[in-house]
Amino acid sequence: MIKTTTGPGRPRRKDPDEVRQALIAAARDQFAQGSFKGVSVREIARAAGVNQAMVNYYFGDKRGLYEAMLQETIGPLIRTLEEAEARGEVARLEDLIPRHAATLAANPWLPNLIIREVLYGESEFRNLFIEKFASRVAAALRRAIDGGRDKGELRDDLDPRFGTLILFSLTIYPFVARPVVERAMGIPIDDAFAGRWSEQILQLLAPPKPPPEDEDP
Amino acid sequence: MIKTTTGPGRPRRKDPDEVRQALIAAARDQFAQGSFKGVSVREIARAAGVNQAMVNYYFGDKRGLYEAMLQETIGPLIRTLEEAEARGEVARLEDLIPRHAATLAANPWLPNLIIREVLYGESEFRNLFIEKFASRVAAALRRAIDGGRDKGELRDDLDPRFGTLILFSLTIYPFVARPVVERAMGIPIDDAFAGRWSEQILQLLAPPKPPPEDEDP
Repeated sequence: MIKTTTGPGRPRRKDPDEVRQALIAAARDQFAQGSFKGVSVREIARAAGVNQAMVNYYFGDKRGLYEAMLQETIGPLIRTLEEAEARGEVARLEDLIPRHAATLAANPWLPNLIIREVLYGESEFRNLFIEKFASRVAAALRRAIDGGRDKGELRDDLDPRFGTLILFSLTIYPFVARPVVERAMGIPIDDAFAGRWSEQILQLLAPPKPPPEDEDP
Repeated sequence: MIKTTTGPGRPRRKDPDEVRQALIAAARDQFAQGSFKGVSVREIARAAGVNQAMVNYYFGDKRGLYEAMLQETIGPLIRTLEEAEARGEVARLEDLIPRHAATLAANPWLPNLIIREVLYGESEFRNLFIEKFASRVAAALRRAIDGGRDKGELRDDLDPRFGTLILFSLTIYPFVARPVVERAMGIPIDDAFAGRWSEQILQLLAPPKPPPEDEDP
């Protein structure tokens, strides 16, 4: 799967960035199926078609590779939030919610990983995930909720702390409970889902529209 | 833990219903810690302080005990829904949501079991849980949403199918993601949580209140 810079007959030479990306992609596949402990560096390297030593070279160790894999997936979402704030802007929920839902929809290994390493039993990655990812997303969402309320874009009866929990619940549950949602509710978690679901969430959080009675007195 | 009908010196005699309840309580404790496969009938009987043969006598087998344990916990919720409907009434979300949240809050083994047997990996109990419990709750919630909308108790921009998913997300996620909620959002999932959270959910689904401008023209 890795593009090489060689012609026919020449020895395969891989671009360093491609090696790194291949390792991250292989890690996603492997960690979606097995736990952090259960998957070996050797298996990931074999699936990526590279030498096992490359894992240490690029990521230090298995933990480093795991963290890089999360960083590459959830990182852009967190960076969007934090860069907007660095510019003195407030990230808008209209931008964040579809992005958050689309990230989970496009990476089904990520809900699997959340179930396996965060929800199920104790793992050393629960702490990593909570501290490096969930806490930062939660803090940024809370600031976005505060900002949205200040600008009148959000209903004002929303407790900001509970608002964060509402957003986590609505954006994460459908993806981690996919078999229940699809089979007990008949809602397919397909390509179109993230978009339609994000609209429903935003509508739920929007300030009430003036009642239509006002127009015919 | 089992009350006996014996006085001092007499042989212990247990009430049949107490044996049954003791086995169900022991099964909850054991299945909260181990998977369906991993926990043995022998361990459950020992924890309940009864003879192993009692499991077969009361429940047929381990699967029957497991199902009875779920039935005792989730059954009353489903019966409330279905009995109201049998009387030609529509169960009200004001009754259902606090009850659903309180059931999960009062039985922390239940979210654990949902993670272990429904969300994590494939298990034969995923099917049982989806068909016997989740599907019935989903169908009844959907009818309650339809009824609530007809009576004007619910906002009318709620898609009934998505409404069911909103309710599942909001009532289940906080309990299955407890470490994330407590540590990343600083919201303790304590005794008071289910009540306050239910109020927030109902407020989110209520029809918009008339704007206060109407009062000072």
